[in-house]
Amino acid sequence: MSTDSLKTPRICGLPTFMRLTHTQELAGVDVAVVGVPFDTGSPYRVGCRFGPREIRSISVLLRPINPYHDIDVFDVCKVVDYGDATVIPGETERSFAAIEAELDHIIANGVKPLCFGGDNSISLPQIRSLGRAHGPISLIHLDAHTDTWDDYLGVRHNAATSYRRGVEEGWIDASTSIQVGMRGSLFSREDIRQSIDLGYQLITTDEMLDAGIDEVVGRIKRRVGRNKVFLSVDMDVVDPAFAPGVQIPEAGGPSAHDILTLLRRLAGVNLVGAEVMELNHLYDSGEITALLAATFGAEILALIAVHKQGKAG
Amino acid sequence: MSTDSLKTPRICGLPTFMRLTHTQELAGVDVAVVGVPFDTGSPYRVGCRFGPREIRSISVLLRPINPYHDIDVFDVCKVVDYGDATVIPGETERSFAAIEAELDHIIANGVKPLCFGGDNSISLPQIRSLGRAHGPISLIHLDAHTDTWDDYLGVRHNAATSYRRGVEEGWIDASTSIQVGMRGSLFSREDIRQSIDLGYQLITTDEMLDAGIDEVVGRIKRRVGRNKVFLSVDMDVVDPAFAPGVQIPEAGGPSAHDILTLLRRLAGVNLVGAEVMELNHLYDSGEITALLAATFGAEILALIAVHKQGKAG
Amino acid sequence: MSTDSLKTPRICGLPTFMRLTHTQELAGVDVAVVGVPFDTGSPYRVGCRFGPREIRSISVLLRPINPYHDIDVFDVCKVVDYGDATVIPGETERSFAAIEAELDHIIANGVKPLCFGGDNSISLPQIRSLGRAHGPISLIHLDAHTDTWDDYLGVRHNAATSYRRGVEEGWIDASTSIQVGMRGSLFSREDIRQSIDLGYQLITTDEMLDAGIDEVVGRIKRRVGRNKVFLSVDMDVVDPAFAPGVQIPEAGGPSAHDILTLLRRLAGVNLVGAEVMELNHLYDSGEITALLAATFGAEILALIAVHKQGKAG
Amino acid sequence: MSTDSLKTPRICGLPTFMRLTHTQELAGVDVAVVGVPFDTGSPYRVGCRFGPREIRSISVLLRPINPYHDIDVFDVCKVVDYGDATVIPGETERSFAAIEAELDHIIANGVKPLCFGGDNSISLPQIRSLGRAHGPISLIHLDAHTDTWDDYLGVRHNAATSYRRGVEEGWIDASTSIQVGMRGSLFSREDIRQSIDLGYQLITTDEMLDAGIDEVVGRIKRRVGRNKVFLSVDMDVVDPAFAPGVQIPEAGGPSAHDILTLLRRLAGVNLVGAEVMELNHLYDSGEITALLAATFGAEILALIAVHKQGKAG
Amino acid sequence: MSTDSLKTPRICGLPTFMRLTHTQELAGVDVAVVGVPFDTGSPYRVGCRFGPREIRSISVLLRPINPYHDIDVFDVCKVVDYGDATVIPGETERSFAAIEAELDHIIANGVKPLCFGGDNSISLPQIRSLGRAHGPISLIHLDAHTDTWDDYLGVRHNAATSYRRGVEEGWIDASTSIQVGMRGSLFSREDIRQSIDLGYQLITTDEMLDAGIDEVVGRIKRRVGRNKVFLSVDMDVVDPAFAPGVQIPEAGGPSAHDILTLLRRLAGVNLVGAEVMELNHLYDSGEITALLAATFGAEILALIAVHKQGKAG
Amino acid sequence: MSTDSLKTPRICGLPTFMRLTHTQELAGVDVAVVGVPFDTGSPYRVGCRFGPREIRSISVLLRPINPYHDIDVFDVCKVVDYGDATVIPGETERSFAAIEAELDHIIANGVKPLCFGGDNSISLPQIRSLGRAHGPISLIHLDAHTDTWDDYLGVRHNAATSYRRGVEEGWIDASTSIQVGMRGSLFSREDIRQSIDLGYQLITTDEMLDAGIDEVVGRIKRRVGRNKVFLSVDMDVVDPAFAPGVQIPEAGGPSAHDILTLLRRLAGVNLVGAEVMELNHLYDSGEITALLAATFGAEILALIAVHKQGKAG
Repeated sequence: MSTDSLKTPRICGLPTFMRLTHTQELAGVDVAVVGVPFDTGSPYRVGCRFGPREIRSISVLLRPINPYHDIDVFDVCKVVDYGDATVIPGETERSFAAIEAELDHIIANGVKPLCFGGDNSISLPQIRSLGRAHGPISLIHLDAHTDTWDDYLGVRHNAATSYRRGVEEGWIDASTSIQVGMRGSLFSREDIRQSIDLGYQLITTDEMLDAGIDEVVGRIKRRVGRNKVFLSVDMDVVDPAFAPGVQIPEAGGPSAHDILTLLRRLAGVNLVGAEVMELNHLYDSGEITALLAATFGAEILALIAVHKQGKAG
Repeated sequence: MSTDSLKTPRICGLPTFMRLTHTQELAGVDVAVVGVPFDTGSPYRVGCRFGPREIRSISVLLRPINPYHDIDVFDVCKVVDYGDATVIPGETERSFAAIEAELDHIIANGVKPLCFGGDNSISLPQIRSLGRAHGPISLIHLDAHTDTWDDYLGVRHNAATSYRRGVEEGWIDASTSIQVGMRGSLFSREDIRQSIDLGYQLITTDEMLDAGIDEVVGRIKRRVGRNKVFLSVDMDVVDPAFAPGVQIPEAGGPSAHDILTLLRRLAGVNLVGAEVMELNHLYDSGEITALLAATFGAEILALIAVHKQGKAG
Repeated sequence: MSTDSLKTPRICGLPTFMRLTHTQELAGVDVAVVGVPFDTGSPYRVGCRFGPREIRSISVLLRPINPYHDIDVFDVCKVVDYGDATVIPGETERSFAAIEAELDHIIANGVKPLCFGGDNSISLPQIRSLGRAHGPISLIHLDAHTDTWDDYLGVRHNAATSYRRGVEEGWIDASTSIQVGMRGSLFSREDIRQSIDLGYQLITTDEMLDAGIDEVVGRIKRRVGRNKVFLSVDMDVVDPAFAPGVQIPEAGGPSAHDILTLLRRLAGVNLVGAEVMELNHLYDSGEITALLAATFGAEILALIAVHKQGKAG
Repeated sequence: MSTDSLKTPRICGLPTFMRLTHTQELAGVDVAVVGVPFDTGSPYRVGCRFGPREIRSISVLLRPINPYHDIDVFDVCKVVDYGDATVIPGETERSFAAIEAELDHIIANGVKPLCFGGDNSISLPQIRSLGRAHGPISLIHLDAHTDTWDDYLGVRHNAATSYRRGVEEGWIDASTSIQVGMRGSLFSREDIRQSIDLGYQLITTDEMLDAGIDEVVGRIKRRVGRNKVFLSVDMDVVDPAFAPGVQIPEAGGPSAHDILTLLRRLAGVNLVGAEVMELNHLYDSGEITALLAATFGAEILALIAVHKQGKAG
Repeated sequence: MSTDSLKTPRICGLPTFMRLTHTQELAGVDVAVVGVPFDTGSPYRVGCRFGPREIRSISVLLRPINPYHDIDVFDVCKVVDYGDATVIPGETERSFAAIEAELDHIIANGVKPLCFGGDNSISLPQIRSLGRAHGPISLIHLDAHTDTWDDYLGVRHNAATSYRRGVEEGWIDASTSIQVGMRGSLFSREDIRQSIDLGYQLITTDEMLDAGIDEVVGRIKRRVGRNKVFLSVDMDVVDPAFAPGVQIPEAGGPSAHDILTLLRRLAGVNLVGAEVMELNHLYDSGEITALLAATFGAEILALIAVHKQGKAG
Repeated sequence: MSTDSLKTPRICGLPTFMRLTHTQELAGVDVAVVGVPFDTGSPYRVGCRFGPREIRSISVLLRPINPYHDIDVFDVCKVVDYGDATVIPGETERSFAAIEAELDHIIANGVKPLCFGGDNSISLPQIRSLGRAHGPISLIHLDAHTDTWDDYLGVRHNAATSYRRGVEEGWIDASTSIQVGMRGSLFSREDIRQSIDLGYQLITTDEMLDAGIDEVVGRIKRRVGRNKVFLSVDMDVVDPAFAPGVQIPEAGGPSAHDILTLLRRLAGVNLVGAEVMELNHLYDSGEITALLAATFGAEILALIAVHKQGKAG
């Protein structure tokens, strides 16, 4: 299902995610990797539309065996690179409709979507499709920002509002959901409170670094239990040193190792979908943000494989 | 009206365009420089929203005396940096309304706007405000692309449609207007023909370089005569070597010297407004595109000053 | 006092520090943000002269509420962006005189200056103005280097000598002052000893990371007590991964989170002035050093606000 | 055969050359675009191995209609993106064998290869496959360097020797071949003479700019006549301002417009294969070299289409 | 032996490593710094050939006194910058021969080589020369990858195989050697196991960060004892945030401070040679990877000086 | 006298200018290449201090045979890389003294200096040393700016005043000197007039491009006749597309080919010294400005060799 880098050098060929087969055939497929090159919801540094292309490009460095779980991911799971949703720059509603149509089709085939953004506005169509298929889902949200505003600049569907809309529309069960990694200055004291008012549990970056990753993982697992979970990672959750290439960087975050460890220890969680968002390669350096985004994606695939194998503790 | 660089070094102070006074007071003002940081109309390389900031930044290098016309521009004309129109990222209609309101106010005060983009979608609100105030105006349009599509991807207001809308809505008198610099491959044979069908005269890059700048200037001046003119410069009109920092670069264009010469020889044309568009500093190198955009702006101010002085031939 | 980013998008307008009003009116003002674009004191990687411009530019991302202190900074303190001191590139003495004149005026109006550099040579005029107004002051100095040389290359006023001159001239009370973060190879064993000989207490990066931030904060607070304090942050105090854009990077430093935590826990210290120095955007990546410098500035404003409110422990 | 950019935005999907179908099915195909990501033959600035990836990426900007020839290229010719030859970094002989095997197969199916490099070492396997199929072929070689050394540093197969080997091995008929664009300092007086000794005609950059493009085109056409031609373009033939991203830049070359004009006027020449070489994106700026390389490729496809249509003069 | 930066500013003069004398005279010399600008063994991001040049360039910032060991390195040890081995791009066997000849000569003069790469393929000639002179040596290998493959893509001498070859050829005593820092996804489960099968001890990044640097240093020292040691540092051992400029970055590594601390605590180990490898400045940012590589080199020189002085614990 | 790139690859060794021997022995030497890494005279974009290092680095690409003059430069002339003058950042007078001392020594040995800057402030010490040795000399000055101000910001010795000081101090005979390439906006009408008042002949960029290079060369040669000439090239004389990496770029200049042609046709002029100034690699792209600066240097060496051979027309 993926090009063998021991036979075909990684510099050869059109890059798909982890050199997976590029197809829209879904029979027998466990996970479909989907690019969502949309950034009209970005209020400041724009360019996440090239995220999927850059993540695919660097992801050829990644290999199929995950040593933390001692698992051959593509042996356990059939994963394909589905290509991109057909979004229209500047057109939020039309793009949402196109994304939802694509994801409804994928999910209807029993396939779990792993989406690469794009900015966080396009979290909402993912949440809608997953919620439609699975009933209210639990959210694990790793991000420097809550993205639970009612509107930003009068716009109700952009990178700052998706996780409010998801609750309001009934797709997310906030009472079993958790947001992790928030930090930075605020426009108003409501920024944090409104997440809690919506029902989310919230762990700030400072609380995370004080408590330690193990404790945070415990809280997350207790919160989501055995529910169906949507896992969202915004690249800005790590410090800008590890992820310069994002839309809204926020100084003073955890390290890449911190978040990779957190992700790996989520083994056992029942993911029905996931996203890695907000890579903006125009501000990246040495492809490090793109590589980290791709690695987050690979770790998520491993989590799904581990769950399928029934191996996780 | 501008900071004296012989007293205050150019590295000091908040950069305004050419170090002009930043004010929204319009009494006695001839020209208002306006930033329009909007790029939602960009179908490919996005980021022109930072154009006004980058142009202001490098423009501190420019000086008030224009030697080609032997004129002290700010002695003849009162020019101010008006600041930016309050556009909303992702919101085309609301942004157009805000731009039009601002420009209507400026023009109503007898002031000529010189706008820095932003992408070419926001040419339309400029055209509307100018057309509303002055009746159908003539267009001199320097660009590698005609931007006269009916729609692009089903969107009727973006960087590819403004100069069709302007004719359709009656603000541009195509029969006295001209487009110069078109080149590159086409989606359909209509791309060029539709400009001509709308009534524009059109000079391609190849025709320009074959005929020579003097001949092209002659054709432009004959076309627009003594009409009120809106002068539009898209930075992609020059070769990408001279302007790497644009949205849609097109290989094989004229040099910066060619277009500067063309602009300088337009002295005598009766400008009622002008725009310099599509600077995308995220793809720039050594600030050369930003400097060229600022220089185009300075040359346009000189044209207005020359016209005011009644000096032009 | 600052542009409301919930009404005017952050991409609009000429960037001032945190979108504060740009004015030199000081009536009722608590803190004046001042740019000092001078880098003639830089012996190696030059370019810090553009520091104030780049910090202002990225600082539009910062918001007025500081959640660590639960305070609306601009509600408690009146803060303005005063603009830049009029320094002359290459002219140390003239520039020092201009800086001192500006700061004397600011301080005489009861306003606390927060300066953005520029290289550390221009710490001296700040120290002079503050010392002149307040008597010998205490110094909290976060930096990879002591900057206490007698001269460097025969020059007595450059980025390596300010904190010796400040003691020698009587403006700094070394016995209540402390330097934190020193590391890296040395030209001579005197580099460290001379700071101690001057009377400073000194905590190296290794001592800081071994002892922990809480312990370091305790030592600092015990050292400066209730004295009037000048807080100096050189961006090179953090590891080059977090601040590539500096004059003299020094491998192996603390993280951005370490230093942000240290700053936040300084609440209660009585600041009479502060500086954030040595941002060189020409070596920056994804604007991360500029953002960190701006964030340091915002945390310092919060410290001043907390102190004004009498909230600090 | 290519994605319709009027329906699917250019930011969507995995980029193939000009959005052509990616397939290795050759039935009915006229031209196969082949990437050859090999740069072990590069003696100085290495990195051309990423050339095919970067050219594909930017080539989504190009459109199917070529206005210079007034032709819908993909209407006339069936063109596919064949993917990459499976080269092995560091292994010249094995990579040459792999390239030749792939090209022999392509040519045996009556398909013309258009190769994107990679460095000029891999011109030799192309020449061999074309020579094997078509008998001695004529060469039109646009390059700042002759690449006709006997060896460089004792290596007989690298970026400086291919066009000697091609003659020596009997695949190129030097007496009907021509090299255009040479310039720059020389290691020995033999650098130029050895090309002439091999039988090539040679036009330097200075001769080209003095004579004018029309005269040069005349000489080229007279030289190759109705022979089967291999057209080779090294990106360094243009000035580094237009193509900074190359292996060995040579100051003082022609403009992009010069070489595009030259290529367009080659209509009528009977191409059996072509290559665009030496793009090194690690030294590129704003993707301008990549765009120019892609545009050269698109112009070559147009030449093949024009020839097929029998339209050319 | 080195230019005095207190007399000659660091911006002056041709940069040698730490401004040491550039000479090939070896009488009385303790350590020779040797550049090995070879990267033909790089399967992915190529460009390490410029590593020695970039390390020398930034190394002028480093100073002769190492405060961690309180030692004046160049006072204790005579160190010279020997220049580069004469490698031939693309020619592995010839380059290995040239490197070995150079190193055999250096070692025969009783001089310890400190090599800057270049990619890890050229570790093998170093190992051969050191093994030949000193009998089987112990290896301390800091790297994200084991580099103990039998072949990669059919190539037996490249950046992935050197530490297997070294054992197989009898130069490395694996039973007293240790590899530290491994992490990341694997092509096969054998990737790790084969190192252990060869006899190496192995500490992964996760084990290192869990155990702490002190514990890791203890294990290393117990493993190598008083043997003659070759110390190898691949820049990719640290997280890409600290070293973006490498060939194959691997997300989630330790910090620069972690590895600097580890190196410093190796005082007492009996080094006979050392290497700092895989700097690829084409992907660097703000010269931080180059500075870290140079700093690693300076710390290694300090280790050798400490050992010579008999100071180490 | 220079490393043979046919034996030692250009990636090997410490880069000197054109791989010449680095020595301060002057016996029998015709030309000494001298770096002057000083940029304290730069009022805006600073960083030219790294010019000599970057020019040396890229100059390894240049080869000893100049085909335009059909001459083996190093066969005719003995040229060495003398290293750098010991300038002190920030200290204009001390640096001037050091430069003059070094150049006086070089010239006293009958050696012609070719200096690489650094900014144009350090033209003055060159002019002084040359004038002192040779009596009033003639100047050929290629630059976008006249640099003949009396002072700039009250500073009499910076990048804008050298060619006035040189006349005032009696070292330059303005009546046989010429300035070529001026363009761009002016602070005052005096900017140009003051050059003419000093006695210089002046040819603007527009006059140059209108008249053609041959005509300009004729005027230059008639102006300087058989006098002893100092040839000064400021990299900003060419368009920023060809030289983005400069201190004060000026849009709309000639091409690299234009200026290279001009230089080559100066054969016969009696040079006693020359300089290539204002390379600022921090704003360069793909090393193109550095390569052009190095190429200008190589062409100047060829002019000296041609003159020595008595070959020139």
